[in-house]
Amino acid sequence: MSASGSTGMNGAESLVRTLLGSGVNTCFANPGTSEMHFVAALDQIPGMRCVLGLQENIVTGMADGYFRIAGNPACTLLHCGPGLANGLANLHNARRAGSAIVNIVGDQATYHRPFDAPLTADTDGLARTVSSWVRTSARAADVGRDAAAAVHAARIAPGNVTTLILPSDSSWEEGGIVADCLQVNRYAALDPHDVDTAADMLRRHSDVLILLGGQAVLETSQRLAWRIARATGASVMLDWVNGRVERGLGRLPFDRVPYSIDVARKALDRYKHIILVNCKAPVSFFAYPGKPSTQYAAGAQVHVLSRATQNSEEALAALAEALKAPEVELPQSGPRPEIANGKPTPEGLARTVAAVMPDQAIISDESVSFGRGFYAQTFNAPPHDWLHLTGGAIGDGLPVATGAAIAAGGERRVIGLQADGSAMYSLQSLWTQARERLPVTTIILSNKKYNILIGEYEGVGAVPGETAMNMLDLGNPCLDWVKLAQGMGVDAAKVDTMEGCAALMTQSFTKRDPFLIELLI
Amino acid sequence: MSASGSTGMNGAESLVRTLLGSGVNTCFANPGTSEMHFVAALDQIPGMRCVLGLQENIVTGMADGYFRIAGNPACTLLHCGPGLANGLANLHNARRAGSAIVNIVGDQATYHRPFDAPLTADTDGLARTVSSWVRTSARAADVGRDAAAAVHAARIAPGNVTTLILPSDSSWEEGGIVADCLQVNRYAALDPHDVDTAADMLRRHSDVLILLGGQAVLETSQRLAWRIARATGASVMLDWVNGRVERGLGRLPFDRVPYSIDVARKALDRYKHIILVNCKAPVSFFAYPGKPSTQYAAGAQVHVLSRATQNSEEALAALAEALKAPEVELPQSGPRPEIANGKPTPEGLARTVAAVMPDQAIISDESVSFGRGFYAQTFNAPPHDWLHLTGGAIGDGLPVATGAAIAAGGERRVIGLQADGSAMYSLQSLWTQARERLPVTTIILSNKKYNILIGEYEGVGAVPGETAMNMLDLGNPCLDWVKLAQGMGVDAAKVDTMEGCAALMTQSFTKRDPFLIELLI
Repeated sequence: MSASGSTGMNGAESLVRTLLGSGVNTCFANPGTSEMHFVAALDQIPGMRCVLGLQENIVTGMADGYFRIAGNPACTLLHCGPGLANGLANLHNARRAGSAIVNIVGDQATYHRPFDAPLTADTDGLARTVSSWVRTSARAADVGRDAAAAVHAARIAPGNVTTLILPSDSSWEEGGIVADCLQVNRYAALDPHDVDTAADMLRRHSDVLILLGGQAVLETSQRLAWRIARATGASVMLDWVNGRVERGLGRLPFDRVPYSIDVARKALDRYKHIILVNCKAPVSFFAYPGKPSTQYAAGAQVHVLSRATQNSEEALAALAEALKAPEVELPQSGPRPEIANGKPTPEGLARTVAAVMPDQAIISDESVSFGRGFYAQTFNAPPHDWLHLTGGAIGDGLPVATGAAIAAGGERRVIGLQADGSAMYSLQSLWTQARERLPVTTIILSNKKYNILIGEYEGVGAVPGETAMNMLDLGNPCLDWVKLAQGMGVDAAKVDTMEGCAALMTQSFTKRDPFLIELLI
Repeated sequence: MSASGSTGMNGAESLVRTLLGSGVNTCFANPGTSEMHFVAALDQIPGMRCVLGLQENIVTGMADGYFRIAGNPACTLLHCGPGLANGLANLHNARRAGSAIVNIVGDQATYHRPFDAPLTADTDGLARTVSSWVRTSARAADVGRDAAAAVHAARIAPGNVTTLILPSDSSWEEGGIVADCLQVNRYAALDPHDVDTAADMLRRHSDVLILLGGQAVLETSQRLAWRIARATGASVMLDWVNGRVERGLGRLPFDRVPYSIDVARKALDRYKHIILVNCKAPVSFFAYPGKPSTQYAAGAQVHVLSRATQNSEEALAALAEALKAPEVELPQSGPRPEIANGKPTPEGLARTVAAVMPDQAIISDESVSFGRGFYAQTFNAPPHDWLHLTGGAIGDGLPVATGAAIAAGGERRVIGLQADGSAMYSLQSLWTQARERLPVTTIILSNKKYNILIGEYEGVGAVPGETAMNMLDLGNPCLDWVKLAQGMGVDAAKVDTMEGCAALMTQSFTKRDPFLIELLI
């Protein structure tokens, strides 16, 4: 019995009831012994959809994909420090996407921790590397209160990774108290001065770039930015990576800042004034000898209109208002691309995806080097959402696709554009897709090497030798993605032409089940 | 150019040369952009065997298995914070095994880090959760010195995980200086008083348990402990988990402390005096309501003869000397077990493995709940090494087997006893086994559920309902391990009888290649 007296429920029950009461009704899970009372509570209390991932980076990646589509946090259930550790890479990506996720990490009982049993680890230290908010519930009576606070913190803009550590005795002891949902004031207030400064910059200069990131890449903000651009002659671009971009017909054909430092510098060189909307000033993904860290022109004036914690729609609307920018038509769209033929190329694949994708498709893009030019070919596709690898930690494409499909209730087709090397990081996702019968079509871009790295190696100034290729080549032995998919219950086929790929894609869209296409590129 | 002037080599070259000069000649790797100069240096300087893993937990698990057999550290090559994060769970296991590993983690250039590019993470914070030693080389001239210190720290008993963070500019800049190998005083000195106290305890009491862990479970220490036990009437047991136990004919048939708190309590209840040799006092893996944390009798006197940092052979030899314990014969061994027939059982599998294993086999045991009784059936097998899951972070069995096979130069057969749920954590290991043509026979114990957790759930006092089984059952869809293995280039077969399993095992031993057996249990 807890010191706080019996309340008729244990900590685990108060946790489940608090999460449900706070609007969290999906749990991505890979539980262990120390979470069994929480699992039992989930069993007894209806309302939580529990989805199993076969490794924790699948679990956290699914939670990320879920938030990007649902706009509401899921919780994860992870087992002790090492279980959390396995999921950190996709929590890193989620953090960069501004995804709200509430991690529940079961841990050793408070009184058992000092004995340093084998699975004991620095759970708090691990959690702090990716979380905006971390708390350990030291007794059953605190669990409900802490869970409500975790959900609240997760929902603050842009969305945060929060981690509640649940010692097993806090879970099993009586004395649980259900906490009410905490109302969230999601956005930090705008500073009118920031709007005035931006308006002034746009009025006085013709070399202005409006750069959109985070929430500002969604349709409403895009339209406001377009209106401002038309009124002022400014240009608009999107950040290189974004959690979710609304694209296709009815949305604006904005380019992204290029990946390569040289290409980006060239593209941004003419802008001496940059207005940032919910993103940071663009920097190179990595540093290179003798090259600058920043992608924009040296000496360019950078002004922050709104931060990730603020509401981009409000900021852009205020800016449009200040500029008295009139309502404008969307630009004329071009014809829908047609299916490509013959050998796969990046452009051909992008055009083919644009040609066949159903309305309201979701693209999970972990195409890495192959996919840098996909945007230009897909502007004239039907409306769709495009989900990027936001934090550069490879292995998010498959789980993000899986979680997005769950968030869409199986009603939208998810298309994964997936590099093979990255796919091997989280191939276990396919099993969850089969188990939950999710409408996900994964296209594995099978080039049998870490192609991005071969390019980077050549950038060092040499052709990779045998030792280097030992670490960059995936062709010995070749991975057979059809067998790997089938081994996890996902139907699959191999193809080496674009028309073949198109036929398989179209066929896969007719069944509410996952399908995998190994595209030999 | 570095401030310290040109030395004719960059930091990366000084790193490779220092590692080789310090006796580190195997590198388990999954590199990224920020490591390309290190990869280039590996290409240019002969002597380092580089082995690719397709996800970082494979890389770190291989390094753990390598040390357990080689007794010498390998290095890993990991990419930034998230790459390290992916490998933390098996570094946790390595830490618990006392394995020496030198992690090289490439990271953002020192001057680029403040820009917080997408892949930037708290690399140092992540490293500290599992490492005994962490350092960031801030300039090229420091890299060699820091690498030598990392190897030195790794080698201190029992073996440590050390992490050297290598910003890309420290890697590519000129000014690298090769450092000499630092001589290691591996062991902390023994305290003669600890030996006297142990001797006194053994002379005065008949209810003494000598508990061996770490280095003390190797043959030499086993024989010394046996000699002491014969002279004094004490009992000897092994810790529940150990990095490497030397077992089979010529070694001592010591039992382990049982896993279950109830069974362990019963087994240890009669010992009122416990002498610890390179291990901690035995505690329960997890806490359970109303049950004690410690596995030994309340009030038992616990004496530490030697710590993990000390030399168990020296300690036990001094104790045998103090007791004037005479040399003794090994106990009579029983007959070698025979192949079992019919439906697989834990005992049948253990007997069959004992019946067919070649001399000097290496067992990588991640059998979890199925394997708790394997020890009793395998005492009379040929001499072999048994590698445990030391830290409880599932997913080490396959990579540890892979790294052990590499350490043994392909000359010893590795047999993986591998639970299916755990195998899914690190199945990518099979690809490395195929690539390196390693003689590893993996037996997947295919029960299609997280069986240990169903037992734990029932311990909570209920039968799992639908929601719980959603998180505990792996049977929907069934994993097809033959296809999964073949998809990664490993030949495989499915079987549901012990005689069938024995035939496949024996056949696999004839070829120096990996093989996987899906054993339906």
